[in-house]
Amino acid sequence: MAEKMRAVVKTKPAPGADWREVSIPKILPDWVLVKVRATSICGTDVHIYKWDPWAQGRIGEKRLPQTLGHEVAGEVVEVGAHVKRIKVGDSISAETHIYDPGDLTALLGSFHVGEHMKILGVDCDGAFAEYFAVPESVAWVNDKSIPPELATIQEPMGNACYAVLGEDADVAGKTMVITGDGPISLFAVAVARACGVAKIILIGKYDFNMDLGKRLGADHLLFTNKSTADERYQFVRDHTGGNGVDIALEMVGSQDSIVDCFRMVRKAGRVTAFGIPSSSPLPVDYSAGIVFKGCQIHGINGRKMFDTWYRNRNLLAAGRINVCPVITHMFSLEDYTKGFEAMTTRPRASAKVVLFPDPAELAAAKKRCGID
Amino acid sequence: MAEKMRAVVKTKPAPGADWREVSIPKILPDWVLVKVRATSICGTDVHIYKWDPWAQGRIGEKRLPQTLGHEVAGEVVEVGAHVKRIKVGDSISAETHIYDPGDLTALLGSFHVGEHMKILGVDCDGAFAEYFAVPESVAWVNDKSIPPELATIQEPMGNACYAVLGEDADVAGKTMVITGDGPISLFAVAVARACGVAKIILIGKYDFNMDLGKRLGADHLLFTNKSTADERYQFVRDHTGGNGVDIALEMVGSQDSIVDCFRMVRKAGRVTAFGIPSSSPLPVDYSAGIVFKGCQIHGINGRKMFDTWYRNRNLLAAGRINVCPVITHMFSLEDYTKGFEAMTTRPRASAKVVLFPDPAELAAAKKRCGID
Amino acid sequence: MAEKMRAVVKTKPAPGADWREVSIPKILPDWVLVKVRATSICGTDVHIYKWDPWAQGRIGEKRLPQTLGHEVAGEVVEVGAHVKRIKVGDSISAETHIYDPGDLTALLGSFHVGEHMKILGVDCDGAFAEYFAVPESVAWVNDKSIPPELATIQEPMGNACYAVLGEDADVAGKTMVITGDGPISLFAVAVARACGVAKIILIGKYDFNMDLGKRLGADHLLFTNKSTADERYQFVRDHTGGNGVDIALEMVGSQDSIVDCFRMVRKAGRVTAFGIPSSSPLPVDYSAGIVFKGCQIHGINGRKMFDTWYRNRNLLAAGRINVCPVITHMFSLEDYTKGFEAMTTRPRASAKVVLFPDPAELAAAKKRCGID
Amino acid sequence: MAEKMRAVVKTKPAPGADWREVSIPKILPDWVLVKVRATSICGTDVHIYKWDPWAQGRIGEKRLPQTLGHEVAGEVVEVGAHVKRIKVGDSISAETHIYDPGDLTALLGSFHVGEHMKILGVDCDGAFAEYFAVPESVAWVNDKSIPPELATIQEPMGNACYAVLGEDADVAGKTMVITGDGPISLFAVAVARACGVAKIILIGKYDFNMDLGKRLGADHLLFTNKSTADERYQFVRDHTGGNGVDIALEMVGSQDSIVDCFRMVRKAGRVTAFGIPSSSPLPVDYSAGIVFKGCQIHGINGRKMFDTWYRNRNLLAAGRINVCPVITHMFSLEDYTKGFEAMTTRPRASAKVVLFPDPAELAAAKKRCGID
Repeated sequence: MAEKMRAVVKTKPAPGADWREVSIPKILPDWVLVKVRATSICGTDVHIYKWDPWAQGRIGEKRLPQTLGHEVAGEVVEVGAHVKRIKVGDSISAETHIYDPGDLTALLGSFHVGEHMKILGVDCDGAFAEYFAVPESVAWVNDKSIPPELATIQEPMGNACYAVLGEDADVAGKTMVITGDGPISLFAVAVARACGVAKIILIGKYDFNMDLGKRLGADHLLFTNKSTADERYQFVRDHTGGNGVDIALEMVGSQDSIVDCFRMVRKAGRVTAFGIPSSSPLPVDYSAGIVFKGCQIHGINGRKMFDTWYRNRNLLAAGRINVCPVITHMFSLEDYTKGFEAMTTRPRASAKVVLFPDPAELAAAKKRCGID
Repeated sequence: MAEKMRAVVKTKPAPGADWREVSIPKILPDWVLVKVRATSICGTDVHIYKWDPWAQGRIGEKRLPQTLGHEVAGEVVEVGAHVKRIKVGDSISAETHIYDPGDLTALLGSFHVGEHMKILGVDCDGAFAEYFAVPESVAWVNDKSIPPELATIQEPMGNACYAVLGEDADVAGKTMVITGDGPISLFAVAVARACGVAKIILIGKYDFNMDLGKRLGADHLLFTNKSTADERYQFVRDHTGGNGVDIALEMVGSQDSIVDCFRMVRKAGRVTAFGIPSSSPLPVDYSAGIVFKGCQIHGINGRKMFDTWYRNRNLLAAGRINVCPVITHMFSLEDYTKGFEAMTTRPRASAKVVLFPDPAELAAAKKRCGID
Repeated sequence: MAEKMRAVVKTKPAPGADWREVSIPKILPDWVLVKVRATSICGTDVHIYKWDPWAQGRIGEKRLPQTLGHEVAGEVVEVGAHVKRIKVGDSISAETHIYDPGDLTALLGSFHVGEHMKILGVDCDGAFAEYFAVPESVAWVNDKSIPPELATIQEPMGNACYAVLGEDADVAGKTMVITGDGPISLFAVAVARACGVAKIILIGKYDFNMDLGKRLGADHLLFTNKSTADERYQFVRDHTGGNGVDIALEMVGSQDSIVDCFRMVRKAGRVTAFGIPSSSPLPVDYSAGIVFKGCQIHGINGRKMFDTWYRNRNLLAAGRINVCPVITHMFSLEDYTKGFEAMTTRPRASAKVVLFPDPAELAAAKKRCGID
Repeated sequence: MAEKMRAVVKTKPAPGADWREVSIPKILPDWVLVKVRATSICGTDVHIYKWDPWAQGRIGEKRLPQTLGHEVAGEVVEVGAHVKRIKVGDSISAETHIYDPGDLTALLGSFHVGEHMKILGVDCDGAFAEYFAVPESVAWVNDKSIPPELATIQEPMGNACYAVLGEDADVAGKTMVITGDGPISLFAVAVARACGVAKIILIGKYDFNMDLGKRLGADHLLFTNKSTADERYQFVRDHTGGNGVDIALEMVGSQDSIVDCFRMVRKAGRVTAFGIPSSSPLPVDYSAGIVFKGCQIHGINGRKMFDTWYRNRNLLAAGRINVCPVITHMFSLEDYTKGFEAMTTRPRASAKVVLFPDPAELAAAKKRCGID
């Protein structure tokens, strides 16, 4: 096998990233090496690309150079000596939360949160490359019927699935507010629709993305830039028999969105806290929004291993859910700068951007998804 | 108001029922009187109509004459002096399990099972009539957008909803076997499909009904008269990665169907026990099917008050679920004998039969559903 | 029966309350009239007694005069014409949240929170009287083995039970922080201990009450006036293998206590939000405390009808839990001012104060509890 | 380190076992080698010792010789090259269900049941020896405060904990029937008592063991050899307000015990199916016992990894539970024949038998537990 590969690498503590030749990763005995077929850009990658304060604090200069990226699908080309369940030739995606098996949360089955968690492409080299390596423990074998552009987005779709289902997966026939018009909010609309949520009210801002939300199954669109908080609240009350929604998914992390969600959820309802505020602590209406409402809040971070993977794979393989419209852009991996540009342009007119190391794979995917 | 009405009455301890003029029910202070718009025939009605051993034992000669029927939708025309939440003019359906508020189960929120439960049309006069009466406590206000032929079938659809969702409502993205091709099994297919079950394997017998199952969303059909138990088992294993299904709904009550379900469910899966065997006790593979499998069995009887009503109403009102194909026959209430005939002919070529006291209502419903 | 009774009545919009002769309540057809055997003082009563801004806003001048009190046990002396399950002679306690059966929450089984909830002694005449009236729907029949001084405190003990158990009742063998040293926090210690919580860390302030906490089963006491937030946090980490507690009960409502709880709970743990801040919104560490922690917050208000009543009755009747130490003071009802004084003196040296209309009942209770 | 050790080995397909010198196990890179401090005899060991039909079928002649035993506690003396969380010197117990990480159940977090499960001492060499080896994945680090005789019984106590708590751990303040008087039933009594079960009715046979049940916390004892099924049923109804128990633990596996449990559980209650019938299928009252009762059955096999370990450790380390009385016999490992004799003598007068390779350890344990 070759020893070198091309990768998108953060080389210095400044905005941007370089297209570099680097060594193909060496794997540990319980790791697997994977040839990338498709990889996609997450908001986290944008933070690192921009080298914003979060990235500076979390990654820091000392760990550079480091390869970006964590949403990925590929084919296993090598397995370590003590790998047990993954085989060369398997099509896998990476659960990007590399857990420490000694964490109490891991011992108790909550693998996705832990004191000593590492994240692919954040705490170690990532997947914007021709090859990447991960521990077997977080490798998920894909159904062969799922094409690489969908296999790679199972990771953010898993966030959405977990956010929609919460800890109890009790959503059938219920009503839901989803805030945000970024890719995970849009995935959430699709998952909610596929899983029997009976009324989906999407709250966002950008026409292009909100239109995607409509196509994916949202029943009502509320625009934050065209309505007041009171108007949005009233709309939700009017469309839920005066009660508010059973479930509110906070997926933006802004003060306004948090206020919306805690007002809009009905008594004894559920709020998913998924969005991450840029500053915290922040004001929450603790009395009226939590205590007197008797509601539950589920802090959702990552994806349940491998519960959400299993559900999403089943839904995708059976054609129960069509998330193709969320993929708005596809590029060759080498053209990653175009991808970051699409992600950051405002007014927003993109959702998920998928990158392909192999131009033939890119062409085939474009054809499947009808992207020009 | 008139004092007399027409009703389908069991007058003597023998097969059949009579079309009789009887008094319109007098209501108690916490009861409501309802003008019937649509009512539908349940298997329980067939037992009573035939006056089989179960009906003889449960109802007995002494309580006759008694009006049949419990699946129903109508408009409230009178409310008792102490009725609190139902108003004249409300469109309601009846939750047919009239609970005793003093039962421990009722005090703990499991209203649908109780030591002193009474069932409409079984333990008291029912709804195959121009008017019927029920306690306010079991009256469910319908969404006005739901037409009467759908409003009446919310009751058996509620059984199906509860059977599919079980106690935890955790079905999204999972795989499921459903046994039986009667109306509740068919409703279960529709609910499962609407609520994100990713693979639905329907096991039944009659071509006409199995074809309905396919239209309602079943992915695979297994015919008990064209396959052995081992072949069915192998099929399920082959279509679930060798594991068996996450959830098996036993909705027939036959020995063969029970065997199928306990074999087909995967380890740590769930079996819904809904079908009622004609004789019990019966042999169950307790070791391999329950203990070593580490599975859960949910005994499902009735509908959760009003959890399943709420979910079904939301799904129906939003058009998320199309159960019209399950309604295979519509007749004037006066033609109830045609309805019972459709229900009992074999090979089976009917699912749900809806009856209408008012011919104009019948005509409108036929038009809506495209039934000739 | 007599037509007049003595009661503790808020007569004017100012601090205090009067010992008045008033009419015995007339009951509605679905209400019951109860002769009070014991009644106890809640923090809410103190708010009303003091006529603080909350009381002024919630009750207002127009509704005066109004009888105070809601924690109560007594004997049913009259039942309305349509009462079904309660009989004259029953020993009952009042679930003080009088729900509206038309609320969606009530229809879905969450009777304790609702849009149109009324609270005994807050929104209508209460139980600091010789007689009081409640709807049958919220009357809980006591086990005859439970003496009146314990029967009356089942209401706040029910708050504690619900706070400890949360929505899922999953506490066995887990670790827990409980904040506050008021009566409900102390009840929570006792419930937690009885229900198998394996480590209980009580965070409070007043020596007298903290000592009660120790007697009721707390393993560790942390004094907010003798430690910094960091010291408390470190203590909890040191005593939970560095992870934090599985469950944190916030029962104070102060900013400091909320901060403590969200820091001290472990990843994927549970916070009970029970305490009511004096002002809200207030700052919450939303990112680190909720989202990244992947924790659940259960807003707890009232008691699950009648789930927590059932559990507490069973625990009390079986002698599994000894909450007598929480009752620090007993007085004749006529001496209610002494009760309010005990409740409000600082440094705090009281927990639950029970009042008895009948001096003989008072004497017997004092003897049973060893109170002088 | 020495290369040879002494062990209790099944050498031939016939009753009994031999005290043999064998090689100390070689460990795989992800396994650990453990010096045994205490090991205890399970019913499964008795099956193998007797070489009954189950043992003949499950183990078979070809795999002999094989070391018996799986309940164990010891000190880690060597770790494989890829072991991550266990260190030499750790005190560990073995979760004896060695799961296959590729099983769907394992991927979904139900590690304790799986298609390709292996059991220590059943499917490979066990722990009745001076040393044993297990994969790190099933090694549980003990709290140092737990002495070896308690550390070894955490495994069967884990069965009991899982059986008592079921899948939801919702037992606080509830009523429970426990059938059987063997060690796991007795542990279940202790766990139920520690975790707030408010009424415990133990159904068994042998005076000696039933007396232990009383000491461990059972409220009522019902003897199967001194009562009819109807008398037992009536007793349970009389002591549960006529409803039956909230939860029934079937821990015997006999037809009579299964009948008892399905009759005694109340409507909407829970049955734990833990006991393994000697022959299956067997008759179950499917209609009345499951469907119409609307109850849940939880098939319980093994222990939740590591949920039940965590809870039990916390309860033991905190002194919340005293299971010492269940340990009725202690012997030197070399005297294992005395242990098997104590386990098999009838009338039964033993519960848990603990064996110690080191005589000094035996002496110390006897002293701690007051065993002569």
